[in-house]
Amino acid sequence: MRSAAKSWLLLAGFVLFYVVYLLFGALVFSSIERPVEDELRRDVEALKRDFLNQSCVSAAALELFLAKVLAANKHGVSVLRNASLSSNWDLASSMFFANTLVTTVGYGQTAPLSDTGKAFSILYALIGVPFTMLVLTACIQRLVHPLVLTPLSFLQRSGMEPRPATVVHFLLLMVLVVLCFFMVPAAIFSALEVSWSFLDGIYFCFISLCTIGLGDFVPGAQQGQKYRTLYQITVMVYLFTGLMMMYLLLRTFHRMADLHGLTAFFQLPRCEEDQDEDQEPIVESAHEDRTLPDPAEKAASEPLEPASQPTYNTINKG
Amino acid sequence: MRSAAKSWLLLAGFVLFYVVYLLFGALVFSSIERPVEDELRRDVEALKRDFLNQSCVSAAALELFLAKVLAANKHGVSVLRNASLSSNWDLASSMFFANTLVTTVGYGQTAPLSDTGKAFSILYALIGVPFTMLVLTACIQRLVHPLVLTPLSFLQRSGMEPRPATVVHFLLLMVLVVLCFFMVPAAIFSALEVSWSFLDGIYFCFISLCTIGLGDFVPGAQQGQKYRTLYQITVMVYLFTGLMMMYLLLRTFHRMADLHGLTAFFQLPRCEEDQDEDQEPIVESAHEDRTLPDPAEKAASEPLEPASQPTYNTINKG
Repeated sequence: MRSAAKSWLLLAGFVLFYVVYLLFGALVFSSIERPVEDELRRDVEALKRDFLNQSCVSAAALELFLAKVLAANKHGVSVLRNASLSSNWDLASSMFFANTLVTTVGYGQTAPLSDTGKAFSILYALIGVPFTMLVLTACIQRLVHPLVLTPLSFLQRSGMEPRPATVVHFLLLMVLVVLCFFMVPAAIFSALEVSWSFLDGIYFCFISLCTIGLGDFVPGAQQGQKYRTLYQITVMVYLFTGLMMMYLLLRTFHRMADLHGLTAFFQLPRCEEDQDEDQEPIVESAHEDRTLPDPAEKAASEPLEPASQPTYNTINKG
Repeated sequence: MRSAAKSWLLLAGFVLFYVVYLLFGALVFSSIERPVEDELRRDVEALKRDFLNQSCVSAAALELFLAKVLAANKHGVSVLRNASLSSNWDLASSMFFANTLVTTVGYGQTAPLSDTGKAFSILYALIGVPFTMLVLTACIQRLVHPLVLTPLSFLQRSGMEPRPATVVHFLLLMVLVVLCFFMVPAAIFSALEVSWSFLDGIYFCFISLCTIGLGDFVPGAQQGQKYRTLYQITVMVYLFTGLMMMYLLLRTFHRMADLHGLTAFFQLPRCEEDQDEDQEPIVESAHEDRTLPDPAEKAASEPLEPASQPTYNTINKG
């Protein structure tokens, strides 16, 4: 029990550090980008005022005005009157941006304007992306028991054969994910966002949880949104838990595919070069203090991808 | 040799199918989105004409006009005169979009306008993303010999200790990747794109190859770009090879971290629930025809993440 408590404590520490890292990113981004944004906003307002003061509008003047308006818009500063009320770089929005960086979703509806902001983005993601993967993995570890092992053993105890049980379990998990992380959020988003249909909601959830993040639909981007900060934080939590569930689903699919020989079916036959890799140990001295036989360690140091798993074949041999 | 030839043939088949899949996606996206884009473009042109015909411009009229202009711009249709010459949904641009979907980069400078386009994006990514991962993995397999095994054995033959050799090799590989996939492309981009500085180039390369894909900088987006199609195809090849090298670098880092105990250092202590997972086989019947001892298969079915690798610890024990 002490070990379990220590494990949970460490996980809590990881999540806490993740939140602190996001807050730190938000503070830095906000302090770097807010002044640049304010300056651009003032420029755009002056531009609009000058344009309205013209006695007659020529095609050339309009073209020039629109070019500047679109350039500012690309940097997240809208020329519209009611748009100037909210900033893209307040603390919550900056934290939202930091979150899309480290999860590699990257909507890009806001992006750093200054060179300092760009350089900091690189540095921030360089540390943040691997760390986020670590936190996600640690959280998924805690979900394996309630969401994989317990239902699987329940299915087997109720008389189901082991292989069909994995399929039934995977399908149940998929239904759960589709319902809780696609259908329900899509319904909520289409209710909260004025211009979103239900399909737009589903499209947003899918594009986000695959980390594609096109950014054509971003929650909380409409003007005058009520409780905007709370909404953005909720979306951040949704993204994190959603990504966690997507990884868990992928992992469950992979295990099911292994058991049903799907992985072996897609496996590339190994060429001579790969066989070399198996035969000749890369680092000999590291092999001295092994406690497991060679194939175990070989397998452990390979990624899960079907094409690089020699031991996968063995599951369906015989 | 026959096995090697077969392996290369299968890899070529994978890559060919990948290109065909991109072409298929491009054709579908282009045929769905082009008419919608044309209609929006005609609307925007009419809007601009009407606006210019007004005798005097009121603040309210300007506000309404700008709101419509910005909405069209969000959907990739610019109101500017020279912008109307190129489409976001010609074959090359559609293929570029399809490529950013399946690699999960997702710039989002173009995004589907129609509901059909959105629904097709979901379906296309659902198949395309896992398939792209498969093709990338198969390609990385071919790179392990020339870029990992050969240099490592060369370093060891020239008298270097195995552990320092992995560090030197990783650093050399990192320098190679930084030079060939960040520095050189950034220099080329900053030369080809009028408004990009060298830092912008580096920022674009980093944001792309981490699959964040903010989309604030996208090559080939400027108007009147020469050889635009060729340029977009080159960028697609760059993205694919770049992602491949990033995965290879990550894999090399992971192996080095294993050997130096870094992975074990970050490993969460396993709680009782995890121990349950080890002890009780999920699917008993599948274990009948094993050719490897239990720990090997256990390790094979675990992802590479540090937190889920019990066998990692053994490397540095003793």
